[in-house]
Amino acid sequence: MMKLAVDQNNGNAKKKEDAFVIWFTGISGSGKTTLANRLKTEFDKRFIKAEVLDGDAVREFFENDLGYSREERILNIKRITFAAMLLAKNGINVIVANIAPYYEIRDFIRRKLARNYCQIYLKASIEKVMSRDVKGLYGKMMEKGCKNIVGIDDSYDIPRNSDIIIDTDQETIDGSITRIVGFLRKKRIL
Amino acid sequence: MMKLAVDQNNGNAKKKEDAFVIWFTGISGSGKTTLANRLKTEFDKRFIKAEVLDGDAVREFFENDLGYSREERILNIKRITFAAMLLAKNGINVIVANIAPYYEIRDFIRRKLARNYCQIYLKASIEKVMSRDVKGLYGKMMEKGCKNIVGIDDSYDIPRNSDIIIDTDQETIDGSITRIVGFLRKKRIL
Repeated sequence: MMKLAVDQNNGNAKKKEDAFVIWFTGISGSGKTTLANRLKTEFDKRFIKAEVLDGDAVREFFENDLGYSREERILNIKRITFAAMLLAKNGINVIVANIAPYYEIRDFIRRKLARNYCQIYLKASIEKVMSRDVKGLYGKMMEKGCKNIVGIDDSYDIPRNSDIIIDTDQETIDGSITRIVGFLRKKRIL
Repeated sequence: MMKLAVDQNNGNAKKKEDAFVIWFTGISGSGKTTLANRLKTEFDKRFIKAEVLDGDAVREFFENDLGYSREERILNIKRITFAAMLLAKNGINVIVANIAPYYEIRDFIRRKLARNYCQIYLKASIEKVMSRDVKGLYGKMMEKGCKNIVGIDDSYDIPRNSDIIIDTDQETIDGSITRIVGFLRKKRIL
């Protein structure tokens, strides 16, 4: 859809009224929060409004009323989707850092955000992520046994329609940001 | 808190960066949606950004995944609160039409929205509301027996800290709007 919009204007589309939702998906430790915050500074530099919605921060707003079961993850993602839709509708770009692990919920997101949605898949091998273990999640898991860790004992459906795929085992953060910014500039989002 | 902000500026406060959340609470049929939409036109007339979040419309966005139990009502209201906070933070005023029936959830709303929150209580007698019965809710109830109807078999805690109380049994819609607009103008929201 986004491609179409640009084609129709011969690549010279003016910035649209509605803003965009850029959603980083990937397993725990794949770098979603890091890249989301780095991308936010690219919006700031250009004085373009953007809000970061980080999965963990959203849980804090709600005083951690939801756990990590499939059903509860879905509820959390729906909250994010609703807020993101309203912000985008009002001209505020949204950068989401959230695992969004299931086809079911990604279908919901796409259905609700339609053409103003852009999905970035952070592809990361579980081995690499475990060796970095930024949140100490995988360490805890080794001590106490698995409990709803996406990529280990909870499923992560491999995204099918990503606008960008970042191979976080190979690409640097700077390299990834350059690629994402290039893509967003082409789409007249940045 | 809002009073304080005005006092500190000797009543001449300039419009603040953050926008406001104006929340209409009251039992089913008390006129929340009607007044919310009428109030929106007052913002539109003045070219001030505002978004209406109507409890029923929010449920539709979520494809009616929640029912009307106490727990589910609370989840729905939390979704609204989160989106409202983000919109207000980004300069978009929010007008909420939602029953918000329990002290517990109203405390959550106030805690989360703090000084940018304004509560309008639509006081209505159950007799008057039943005789109007705009959604046909009370009619259905008579046929099928009560089921989670706030004010009938589900509790509605009488608001304690409303910024405005509208007696919908006595006041007209026009009269109510005049009063609300007057209040919001004094607070430099409109």
